[in-house]
Amino acid sequence: MGDGAGIGALRGSTRLAAVIGSPVRHSRSPVLANAAFASAGLDWALVALEVAPGDAAAAVDAMRVLGIGGLSVTMPHKHDVIVALDRLSPDAAALEAVNCVAWEGDELVGHNTDGGGLLDALAAGQDLRPDGLRCAVLGAGGAARSVVRSLAAAGAAEVTVINRTTARAESAAALAGAVGRVGAPADVRDAELVVNATSIGMGAAPGDLGPSPVEPDVLRSGQTVVDLVYLPVETPLLRQAAAAGARPVDGIGMLVHQAARAVALWTGVSADVGVMEQAARS
Amino acid sequence: MGDGAGIGALRGSTRLAAVIGSPVRHSRSPVLANAAFASAGLDWALVALEVAPGDAAAAVDAMRVLGIGGLSVTMPHKHDVIVALDRLSPDAAALEAVNCVAWEGDELVGHNTDGGGLLDALAAGQDLRPDGLRCAVLGAGGAARSVVRSLAAAGAAEVTVINRTTARAESAAALAGAVGRVGAPADVRDAELVVNATSIGMGAAPGDLGPSPVEPDVLRSGQTVVDLVYLPVETPLLRQAAAAGARPVDGIGMLVHQAARAVALWTGVSADVGVMEQAARS
Repeated sequence: MGDGAGIGALRGSTRLAAVIGSPVRHSRSPVLANAAFASAGLDWALVALEVAPGDAAAAVDAMRVLGIGGLSVTMPHKHDVIVALDRLSPDAAALEAVNCVAWEGDELVGHNTDGGGLLDALAAGQDLRPDGLRCAVLGAGGAARSVVRSLAAAGAAEVTVINRTTARAESAAALAGAVGRVGAPADVRDAELVVNATSIGMGAAPGDLGPSPVEPDVLRSGQTVVDLVYLPVETPLLRQAAAAGARPVDGIGMLVHQAARAVALWTGVSADVGVMEQAARS
Repeated sequence: MGDGAGIGALRGSTRLAAVIGSPVRHSRSPVLANAAFASAGLDWALVALEVAPGDAAAAVDAMRVLGIGGLSVTMPHKHDVIVALDRLSPDAAALEAVNCVAWEGDELVGHNTDGGGLLDALAAGQDLRPDGLRCAVLGAGGAARSVVRSLAAAGAAEVTVINRTTARAESAAALAGAVGRVGAPADVRDAELVVNATSIGMGAAPGDLGPSPVEPDVLRSGQTVVDLVYLPVETPLLRQAAAAGARPVDGIGMLVHQAARAVALWTGVSADVGVMEQAARS
């Protein structure tokens, strides 16, 4: 378990945050949030709590009883927590998905920091903003939907959603309003910013060149290609992107920045994303 | 907040325990239990959770939903948690008070480790067992009741309860069965083992000689005098005991050993009481 002695930093005054999910024991949230708390000198700690499917609302009630200071919410609870909250942020309401619960006064508010985390990561790491860019999003699940909405809100010229199931692609594209559309895999070539929000590439062996969510010939120089998959950090897609002259961006940045948004919502303090990124990569 | 970086030892696999109470932020339980977990290489952590009066049963329900691995229970919840538990240990049932909740399979069992903690502390620290001893217990509250029962169960020849309110003294003395009796302050002189379980002496300034729960003239050589008050560690009573030639024993030992019993009930692992005592005294 590593640096066990350091658990001695927990004391009676320490405020608890938690990530709830099932399964949750492989969550990176404790490592990220605790690095943020420690670097900011915040007397907070985050643990992972396994909450069975169907118990999301009861977990929010438990948060109230136990005075837990904040929640990260992961699968399969992102929708089911909503009924137990007092309010939702506009993003969470539009997406009908919550990945962060924070106190505002004595009310519990649900937020969605995924898409905003990606924007923060692109701005901080690549000095890239989506204003006026043609964007392609691969996938139509929860992370994809959050990214689609955030790209449109940040002024993207076009957000093309590419997904095997057309109905789900249409639903996700609708979150981008007038700039949203459904596309085909070949449309990736037209995009300046490409975001993989499918799980394809997850768990690929180091050096593996497949599977990738796209054919290599749709990648080109002038593109920024972001993979939200971060295990492995260098996915087959990112290796293809680099080979094609595109700029590859791994998923650690979004992981770190969405967690930093959560820490800020819980504590009011801006986290040191450099320290968090170091913790995430170690 | 001290060694903040060490909070990085918390990860997705870390099992959570908690102390619930109100107020709870000055609890020593996190320092004690986390020292025990770390020294045993256990991937566990304990935090303090403020639970409002009346919410004890809801906190136990929350423990089930969130999969919390163990609870320490302090004021004002020691009685109120009972209704939410599946079973009680014989001690907890007799005392109608629970200071520790542990899983046995999928059942939650309430325990009371106070009196047993004192016995462990006397055996480990003083090589003293209550068999055949005349004992006097000052006070008749929760800790006093647990101590009275444990002294009798360990074979004390006599357990005299001394308390301002006679009815409460009688109720506590009854927990010692045939060897229990109600006494007066002067009866302390006859006892070989004296335990202060009142709060008199708590918060006394260093070097202060009063207030003490007894008159100095009832203390004598041949006595062991234990003060369950541990803030300050050297209480006026203990200073009086030393001056009278009695053996003074401070309250840190019982604090440590009741916490060690809790750690063992939660994890099945024997804690390193030396490390815990060092943490408690630092």
